[in-house]
Amino acid sequence: MSHGFADLIVNNSENNADLRYASGFAAPDTFLYFAMDGKRFIAVSDLEFDRAVKEAKPGVTVLNLRKLAPPGSDFAAVIAEIQKQFGVARFRVPLDFPFGLAEKLRRGNIALEAASGAFFPERSCKSEAEIALIREALAVTEKGMRCAFELLGASSIADDGKLLLDGEVFTSERLRREIDSELARQGASGIGTIAAGGVQGACPHLRGEGPLYAHTPIVMDIFPRHNDSGYYGDLTRTVVKGRAPAIVKKAFDAVYTVREECKAMIRAGVAGHIPHDHAFARLTELGFPTGESEKGFYGFFHGLGHGVGLEIHEAPRLSRKVAHPLQCGEVVTVEPGVYDPAWGGLRLEDMVVVREDHAECLTRIETFLEID
Amino acid sequence: MSHGFADLIVNNSENNADLRYASGFAAPDTFLYFAMDGKRFIAVSDLEFDRAVKEAKPGVTVLNLRKLAPPGSDFAAVIAEIQKQFGVARFRVPLDFPFGLAEKLRRGNIALEAASGAFFPERSCKSEAEIALIREALAVTEKGMRCAFELLGASSIADDGKLLLDGEVFTSERLRREIDSELARQGASGIGTIAAGGVQGACPHLRGEGPLYAHTPIVMDIFPRHNDSGYYGDLTRTVVKGRAPAIVKKAFDAVYTVREECKAMIRAGVAGHIPHDHAFARLTELGFPTGESEKGFYGFFHGLGHGVGLEIHEAPRLSRKVAHPLQCGEVVTVEPGVYDPAWGGLRLEDMVVVREDHAECLTRIETFLEID
Repeated sequence: MSHGFADLIVNNSENNADLRYASGFAAPDTFLYFAMDGKRFIAVSDLEFDRAVKEAKPGVTVLNLRKLAPPGSDFAAVIAEIQKQFGVARFRVPLDFPFGLAEKLRRGNIALEAASGAFFPERSCKSEAEIALIREALAVTEKGMRCAFELLGASSIADDGKLLLDGEVFTSERLRREIDSELARQGASGIGTIAAGGVQGACPHLRGEGPLYAHTPIVMDIFPRHNDSGYYGDLTRTVVKGRAPAIVKKAFDAVYTVREECKAMIRAGVAGHIPHDHAFARLTELGFPTGESEKGFYGFFHGLGHGVGLEIHEAPRLSRKVAHPLQCGEVVTVEPGVYDPAWGGLRLEDMVVVREDHAECLTRIETFLEID
Repeated sequence: MSHGFADLIVNNSENNADLRYASGFAAPDTFLYFAMDGKRFIAVSDLEFDRAVKEAKPGVTVLNLRKLAPPGSDFAAVIAEIQKQFGVARFRVPLDFPFGLAEKLRRGNIALEAASGAFFPERSCKSEAEIALIREALAVTEKGMRCAFELLGASSIADDGKLLLDGEVFTSERLRREIDSELARQGASGIGTIAAGGVQGACPHLRGEGPLYAHTPIVMDIFPRHNDSGYYGDLTRTVVKGRAPAIVKKAFDAVYTVREECKAMIRAGVAGHIPHDHAFARLTELGFPTGESEKGFYGFFHGLGHGVGLEIHEAPRLSRKVAHPLQCGEVVTVEPGVYDPAWGGLRLEDMVVVREDHAECLTRIETFLEID
């Protein structure tokens, strides 16, 4: 009988990346994961048992909740039973462990402590198998982007500058839905797809609404989750239907240059702030300083990139003051952008894998500005 | 200066229905909601501020996180500041409040207590405006189902009984993706869509994989979230391409009859177990008893229905032992089904609004068994 620490997660693995990572099992209903002395277990309901046995990661033992504790037991009772049967002295739980359950366990004299940071810090370094799944998610993402390019190519320009498609005004809403529809057809879910034209593109959080216009940049940021694997792709391109104004061409050249320079700087051991600071300084140098006017923020006011895996935003960050040295197998976005409430935004985003001596770019789709 | 209780939620409102409900503001990044003395506030980042002011519910005051606490403050510091500025004695938080943050607050001598149950029990009773949004989500869901009907109608039957579409074997995967693609085109996200044929349909948690076959039931359960409103639709139909075997016809007649009987029983004041128990007894009477054989469970072994709103499964439940009397405005599914590892499953699901003296059916799409 051991008397040690056990790791414990109680959640559903569709929303909780740590649980999905640890168990390999995707389920919309809450289940339980615990691990001690190098052994890993999940406990699931009757209805999920067979599927869990088939789908759980090698090395994960699947238990039946009904057999672990009397029928009708809640998770607190199941955990009390596990504590007894496995001789657990103390459970280590993630920061997002549900407070209500924690309180109940403590009232039952079960010792809990929250992890001091990431529950599985090793999650940031992807195996080659994980990188293959991310590549697959990104390939679907690129199909969504290609669909957008084709629709913009097929659109025409009305006298008032609005884009027309199939005889109707072509809106951001329509473009987002067409992209999401293509992603779904390819087996991925796009939640939050951005297709923001003109000055809407100056606010990186706007998804885009209303008619799209010619001769002004359209920022498209597509970041679906693959339904089978749970891994994300992340891709941004900015295009102009028609002719780009001089300032937009200048922004495109600057952002493109900086993206390529940053990718060339990334390798194992480089601190996360280094490529970010480079992007900030170079964009300033190339004519795009950062600041705030009465109209809002302008320049480059977000992080250069972030890790991507079972979460769309995860460790590591490429951002100001991030001292973390990049590690082999980390997958990060490189997405410099410049924004100006006067003319809109221009962001270009690729994904790379950190390797020993270089960054391997995963993104295959081309980068260009104008669509005829 | 008040010295009372304040409600507090810290989460992102894309995954947290209570926060979406309280704030009206949809955001993928974590923000903070608090309420006291009948006043409600959200605190969001600089980048989200303008959109939050535009989109938050009437009566919700939007604060800027940066102005509430010094730049770089974490949520614990922001909450300490709120406690001071608003004279909060104690925060009431939801059961799923993050444990890591709770521990940090307690170390800072901030008093917290978990809600005893649902954070907003009133969420189960929908306003007419919410019912309109659910109707809209369900209309999109029906478009997804109609797309499935059409594809099955357009498919042909190969000599070995497999379905063919566009000259290829028509699989569950293809059908699910086509449904999800249609949902996305209509502005909703289908995560977990089920299209399970033959004996796969006997396991209500299987999504379906591999070739679809003629003359055997295909269970299709579609439950997307509308991207704009966040409300869900939920709809199940079971169809046979070709001719249904006698046992499947018998199951269809029984489940259809029971669904209609249950809908006719639902009104304000009826306890949640009443229609469920009725369904269980009547299905037994109609030749579909419930039990477990060496092959698995058979009969009717899940709840009759559940509430639907900003979550796909929410209060109230229509299930064994549920004493809760239904209330006006509650929106629930009515989804009897029978399953048998020998031949598959048959489930039919509508959605209704509980009214004073009847259940108003929201589902419009027809119910039938065979597709030619």
